[in-house]
Amino acid sequence: MLKQWIETEKPQEEALSARLKAVREKLAGQQMQVKDMKLPVLVLVEGWGTSGKGSCIGKIIKDIDPRFFKVASMEEPSVEEQRKPFLYRHFVKIPEAGKFQFLDSGWMDELMKEKLNHNMDAAEYANRVESVKRFERQLTDNGYLVMKFFLHISKKEQKKRIQNLMQNKDAKWRINQNDLWQNKHYEKCMDAYDSYLTDTNLPSAPWYIIDAKSRKWTELQILEILTRGIDIALNNHSLAVPLLQNVFPLVPMPKLSEIPLDKKVEEELYKPELKRLQHRLGELHNRLYRKKVPVIIAYEGWDAAGKGGNIKRLTEALDPRGYEVHPIASPEPHEKARHYLWRFWNRMPKTGHIAIFDRTWYGRVMVERLEGFCSENDWMRAYNEMNEFEKELHDWGAVIIKFWVQIDKDTQLQRFTERQNTPEKQWKITDEDWRNREKWDQYEEAINEMIQKTSTEYAPWYILESVDKKYARIKALQIVVEQLEKALK
Amino acid sequence: MLKQWIETEKPQEEALSARLKAVREKLAGQQMQVKDMKLPVLVLVEGWGTSGKGSCIGKIIKDIDPRFFKVASMEEPSVEEQRKPFLYRHFVKIPEAGKFQFLDSGWMDELMKEKLNHNMDAAEYANRVESVKRFERQLTDNGYLVMKFFLHISKKEQKKRIQNLMQNKDAKWRINQNDLWQNKHYEKCMDAYDSYLTDTNLPSAPWYIIDAKSRKWTELQILEILTRGIDIALNNHSLAVPLLQNVFPLVPMPKLSEIPLDKKVEEELYKPELKRLQHRLGELHNRLYRKKVPVIIAYEGWDAAGKGGNIKRLTEALDPRGYEVHPIASPEPHEKARHYLWRFWNRMPKTGHIAIFDRTWYGRVMVERLEGFCSENDWMRAYNEMNEFEKELHDWGAVIIKFWVQIDKDTQLQRFTERQNTPEKQWKITDEDWRNREKWDQYEEAINEMIQKTSTEYAPWYILESVDKKYARIKALQIVVEQLEKALK
Repeated sequence: MLKQWIETEKPQEEALSARLKAVREKLAGQQMQVKDMKLPVLVLVEGWGTSGKGSCIGKIIKDIDPRFFKVASMEEPSVEEQRKPFLYRHFVKIPEAGKFQFLDSGWMDELMKEKLNHNMDAAEYANRVESVKRFERQLTDNGYLVMKFFLHISKKEQKKRIQNLMQNKDAKWRINQNDLWQNKHYEKCMDAYDSYLTDTNLPSAPWYIIDAKSRKWTELQILEILTRGIDIALNNHSLAVPLLQNVFPLVPMPKLSEIPLDKKVEEELYKPELKRLQHRLGELHNRLYRKKVPVIIAYEGWDAAGKGGNIKRLTEALDPRGYEVHPIASPEPHEKARHYLWRFWNRMPKTGHIAIFDRTWYGRVMVERLEGFCSENDWMRAYNEMNEFEKELHDWGAVIIKFWVQIDKDTQLQRFTERQNTPEKQWKITDEDWRNREKWDQYEEAINEMIQKTSTEYAPWYILESVDKKYARIKALQIVVEQLEKALK
Repeated sequence: MLKQWIETEKPQEEALSARLKAVREKLAGQQMQVKDMKLPVLVLVEGWGTSGKGSCIGKIIKDIDPRFFKVASMEEPSVEEQRKPFLYRHFVKIPEAGKFQFLDSGWMDELMKEKLNHNMDAAEYANRVESVKRFERQLTDNGYLVMKFFLHISKKEQKKRIQNLMQNKDAKWRINQNDLWQNKHYEKCMDAYDSYLTDTNLPSAPWYIIDAKSRKWTELQILEILTRGIDIALNNHSLAVPLLQNVFPLVPMPKLSEIPLDKKVEEELYKPELKRLQHRLGELHNRLYRKKVPVIIAYEGWDAAGKGGNIKRLTEALDPRGYEVHPIASPEPHEKARHYLWRFWNRMPKTGHIAIFDRTWYGRVMVERLEGFCSENDWMRAYNEMNEFEKELHDWGAVIIKFWVQIDKDTQLQRFTERQNTPEKQWKITDEDWRNREKWDQYEEAINEMIQKTSTEYAPWYILESVDKKYARIKALQIVVEQLEKALK
């Protein structure tokens, strides 16, 4: 793409000013529509060093109400960020519905630096490009407007700018080693950028190469393309998108109705076995902390199935500095305003840490599906989105363990009634629980579909038969111990 | 994609039959919606030899009214087709709005064979993949539903099927050399298919890999995915899509108002110069015929600018067996029902032939734009679509010459009045001409934009100043001669 591109003809000063004035007014008007229509707008500005990315963003935001936008500059990943998955620090920056997020370079810049400076091999590069494409497609599929700009200047122009900055004592600090390196290896960088732009030029999120030879002209080009993109996105309200086929390796799973629930653990065996497994888990926790293996344990299950007690038996064995439990309730307004996976990306553990989720992203295909909190296209698409999400975590090196805590309908009734009749347990039971119970059959169908479609080899579901809660606890501990041993081998 | 894929679990016979029955009924119902909503549906079935592509299509169409679908099998390109651009024989097969077109393999198959059998080099392959992506994106951008299936079987299964066919005297003819070759080089083919599927897995037209181990199961998978795709497309009626930036090299062009129109040819020089140029053109026509260079000459211009007489001076010099003039009027219903470039793809010359277009695909950004025959998103997108279209023709080896025949408003009035007052010329002037004339300024703006945005290095516009028609004729001949000489060098 970059190689085919040719320099633009900059309009005359007068025409340029007139067009700038017109497009700034247009953007000022659009921001209210963006807010009303709840459109999230992500503006990614990539480009050569000294091409003026930052100052250009600085000008564009002048015409937007400060309540409606945020700006983030890509820094070198912090020590903390280096311990998170590749996409983490980008995903957490996506805007809320109705707001703009400007990024002064982002995942392209990060990937290009890694490729150019560390000679990333072809397979790893291809893998990263697939991650990026999935990331961007997940955003546009979910109604995000993703505008990607690449600010382009020639080798000569870049050299001139670097020299000018160097001669200016006050501006010298703005040149970094990377700019110098880039200019010296301009052709090599050009090759890498050109491939990347071509590889990630998605129909739903195309690249726009901007002629950055003059600041005003740069601003005008971006504003005109951005406002046009906003027009199109506002027009395409509530779009349905093609459902992708699963390409991840699935493991066959039984239906819930086929699972025998009479499994029990002998009372006298329970305590010693619990102690033994917890002790082993404690040791493993220590080792995975040192080896920096991240672990994600996800719990889903029927109301009153015993998730809480089960999680407790795990955490009892863990060093509190190395794990976190995330109880997941209905999303907060700022969470609801973003991609539904955002709040989970935000809760990703660092390498060496364990994150336990009490309810998870699978709410999308259970409660959100059944209560109509999202469209059919949304939840049908979600199976693949979750497999992609977990693939990303798996590729990062995470151990992913997903538990479905299973009981039958009678057992649930018995436990509900007991809760209702026991004053100190009454807080645990709500009207919603009873309402959900009425939809048992629909839930069962949805859960079966979820388990069939998202039990991947790298992140399978494990069923915990929990009519005997003790049995379920021992089984959970066994599975966690087993999986951690495998990962640490 | 193919490598990550794993075998599916085929449902039990009873469940399979029930699902087949349900989805067939669904499709039977959908065909009427497809018709009413004027949705064009392109179903591309690719896959391994002996995977059952043809028989699968045969079953699917049983439930569609024969008026609503067509089936085409990809054959080896005919001698005629080999003399057309790569995309020609695929583009001409796209369905009408409201109808289904099933393709028993298509451009993937063709490209894969070329790559595997003729060791196409990496650059050429990359070029072809870009062509394919543009082609598919142009279809989906213009409201086509493009469903792409790849029927997958294992090496062992393929071998078994080939052996079974060989043992059956009546079926033996169905095995071709390519199937045998494929099976022998299964891994090599797998690599090529996997890359292709990954490279062309567009968000707007994703690939679906179908487990083709059993016929009924294959049919069910395709039908379920197809009917879901139709649902989504029906929901996304009148979608606007992002406008791509131009990445083709443009040549700077003047505005119409900047062009002096006082150019003249001396009366006594006209005849001899005309004869000389026509003679030279005749010679060149002969040579390009032998060298198999295709030539496309496109005429646009104001009403009464003198296009007809200009074209006549060209054709006088040409051997009638080697050229065709295509007068372009409003599209016929069957043309209107397809992608607007379809009727031009259909009129592409063979190599060695000249096609002259009296009005062209640029109607999209002139009359269709101004009369509202297409949406704003449609015509704004068209500049890039035309640059892509002409790039495709250029890459194929065509010489592309585009003329804008220019006069001023007064000259037009004079010629209109003369036509009106001369009985034998009255047929040449209609009410529509007068109506268009009233929109002169809007047309001028649209034409300026068109000329600026579509004058590429490989297919630039040439302005023919035609207040003196003779001057314009000589200039046209000079340009054609010059360009053909350049191409034949």
